[in-house]
Amino acid sequence: MEPIRVGLLGLGVVGGGTFKVLARNAEEIARRAGRHIVVTKVSARNLDKARLRVGDAAEIVADPFDIVRAPDIDVVVELIGGDTLARELVTEAIRQGKHVVTANKALLAKHGNEIFALAHQHHVMVAFEAAVAGGIPIIKAIREGLSANRIEWVAGIINGTTNFILSEMRARGLPFAEVLKEAQALGYAEADPTFDIEGVDAAHKLSLLAALAFGIPVQFEHAHIEGISTLDQQDIRYAEELGYRIKLLGITKARPEGVELRVHPALVDQHQVMANVDGAMNAVMVKGDAVGATLYYGQGAGEEPTASAVVADLVDVARLLTADPGHRVPHLAFQHDAITDQPILPIDEVRTCYYLRLTVNDIPGVLADITRILADADISIVSMIQKPRPDVTQADIIFITHEALERNVKIAITRIESLTTVLSSVTYLRIENLG
Amino acid sequence: MEPIRVGLLGLGVVGGGTFKVLARNAEEIARRAGRHIVVTKVSARNLDKARLRVGDAAEIVADPFDIVRAPDIDVVVELIGGDTLARELVTEAIRQGKHVVTANKALLAKHGNEIFALAHQHHVMVAFEAAVAGGIPIIKAIREGLSANRIEWVAGIINGTTNFILSEMRARGLPFAEVLKEAQALGYAEADPTFDIEGVDAAHKLSLLAALAFGIPVQFEHAHIEGISTLDQQDIRYAEELGYRIKLLGITKARPEGVELRVHPALVDQHQVMANVDGAMNAVMVKGDAVGATLYYGQGAGEEPTASAVVADLVDVARLLTADPGHRVPHLAFQHDAITDQPILPIDEVRTCYYLRLTVNDIPGVLADITRILADADISIVSMIQKPRPDVTQADIIFITHEALERNVKIAITRIESLTTVLSSVTYLRIENLG
Repeated sequence: MEPIRVGLLGLGVVGGGTFKVLARNAEEIARRAGRHIVVTKVSARNLDKARLRVGDAAEIVADPFDIVRAPDIDVVVELIGGDTLARELVTEAIRQGKHVVTANKALLAKHGNEIFALAHQHHVMVAFEAAVAGGIPIIKAIREGLSANRIEWVAGIINGTTNFILSEMRARGLPFAEVLKEAQALGYAEADPTFDIEGVDAAHKLSLLAALAFGIPVQFEHAHIEGISTLDQQDIRYAEELGYRIKLLGITKARPEGVELRVHPALVDQHQVMANVDGAMNAVMVKGDAVGATLYYGQGAGEEPTASAVVADLVDVARLLTADPGHRVPHLAFQHDAITDQPILPIDEVRTCYYLRLTVNDIPGVLADITRILADADISIVSMIQKPRPDVTQADIIFITHEALERNVKIAITRIESLTTVLSSVTYLRIENLG
Repeated sequence: MEPIRVGLLGLGVVGGGTFKVLARNAEEIARRAGRHIVVTKVSARNLDKARLRVGDAAEIVADPFDIVRAPDIDVVVELIGGDTLARELVTEAIRQGKHVVTANKALLAKHGNEIFALAHQHHVMVAFEAAVAGGIPIIKAIREGLSANRIEWVAGIINGTTNFILSEMRARGLPFAEVLKEAQALGYAEADPTFDIEGVDAAHKLSLLAALAFGIPVQFEHAHIEGISTLDQQDIRYAEELGYRIKLLGITKARPEGVELRVHPALVDQHQVMANVDGAMNAVMVKGDAVGATLYYGQGAGEEPTASAVVADLVDVARLLTADPGHRVPHLAFQHDAITDQPILPIDEVRTCYYLRLTVNDIPGVLADITRILADADISIVSMIQKPRPDVTQADIIFITHEALERNVKIAITRIESLTTVLSSVTYLRIENLG
């Protein structure tokens, strides 16, 4: 069979990795795909550097539109990143009738609905396994492997940078800022780490997972996003003492009244597999009504793990080339016309368990006041610990609650903070049961 | 689009689950597949019982060959089990030009090469996600999700019965026989548990995973198989003390000289995710050269988890119906004519780390003799612990070794056992590093 001719846009970390893996494993891949998959054109900003990397194996061009519009290219692989030029290139490629493979979660989180609709219209595929959790084939698992299920929820550690930072904070007892600096020095965090540490990158990915799981449009703009930059070392220690680890989770849940879509730090029982996902590793748990809970674990970033996902998409595209478009695996797991909008629930509508920490004057009656407020807000307590403070007239109190409505928790917190015996604001963290 | 017409052979646990899941999630599945997937005929031994279960939704027949040969059936789902009648039915279905979905690992482990060759010849698909690790889409992950990789090894807990027994033996300190009885009472183990506890079921599944990972024929007959029925409670305790858990692993590894294919109990570092897979859960780790190590976790058996995999296969078949056969995903991940035979290495050729336990007379010079024998056999020691025994003139000694050749370990054991100061045979277990 004729080889598939790939045009590679971008020769950075993932682009370089993709070129390398396709070359190194060319025979192994062809044994599987039944044909060769060959990068015939590459676009790069630095042509000399690109030449060193690619040699004579592919044509190198400066203008990526020359690839997107080339008649002798079957599939365009977009690895430029960002959502301006990349958007133009991807939409133009689709208009030219070319299949697209991309690792660009920011692009798809923001413009996915437009891009998938255009692809549907032009009968081409847009594959994006590399956009979520690097080399872990989580998109394929949800889209195809669990297609028998009504998916109930998806929850995961889908940002390696923050998981690395949290793992180090716990293991070594260091504050956030210090570990962040180390992560930057090690290359685990970028010079401007905002997207990672504030949860935006995880929310990009989560909004794609929600669409795949529930057959809804991509709704990044409605995600509730909290990062880890304000996370206090003492909450990591207290959580540990109570049998929990703190992880930055992306969680999306189908409920009768709508879909939860939220990224925030959360306490996870230390005996659950998710709590033991350390360092820069990623893991995603998917709960289906038939299959129960399944979990997928691996490297969520990096040159070759991400390239692994890009190349797997290329093999898929190669295989589905001859299936009529109506029989192909749909981009977002559900048929284009079966995607149904559902409201994303505001964070106040979330029901989960909570960890509350506050500092009080250690005098009789304080606890009675606080527990009365919690009871009035329909919040029942699983356990409570009291910890002495350097100033012996004060104490830290930590509550673990049963499932409660977030709105009620916030109301209770406001009332608790107005007590004169309460000396601090109330730190609250959600607890997720991923059993 | 026309519905896909499914003929269901067998209405036992998985057959009944498949019928139930297809009915309950019919709309969700059609939203994904783009067409309905409908069971139109069912064969069952007990027609009255089947009628109660199926109602008027499908035609019920006593002779499964009536389904296999029916012109108005697109896909045959074989859930009868066993390898005699099932083999006849599957091969006849293929000859009739029908696609086949099966959960039958015993059948494919023994007759897979013949069945896949026949399917290739007749241009039909044989899908078997449910045959390995129940609802976990591990076959899809290896076959498609990791298609960019040269796979280095696959290792997994792929038998829930034995993992349940080992978890209970560890947690409660009970001997094998007692826990087995409980597992039988709970329905986790069958009345005749031989296939599970002796590792045969795991070896069936492992031989399929090896074929998918390395592009080799199914070679169950060459697998090295050890079960857990002779596992001693004290080895579980000593392993625990040394920081390990004992799991029944299926391991297959590509080496330049051939392929390792082995099922046996093994020590796993307690900090590794695999060590924390407890109860009846399954987990499979796959190491690819690009992606690194990835892990897949979930329920490996049961009515609906297994049905989840059967139905996912049906959706896949529905989608690939119109792809020309040369472009379909190959049964065993590699194109039929790219499957290359490679020798399965005898267990003596395996290189791994070892746990050795023996009882000695606690007198000077014993250790010197033993360690000399190990050194002569090119086995170096990582650590050693000595434990007192009720008889104070004796002691238990446990060695943990660096990687060594199994043949050398056996030679050393024979020599050690011939020492007059050594009072027991040497118990040895392999240690697997799944990092």
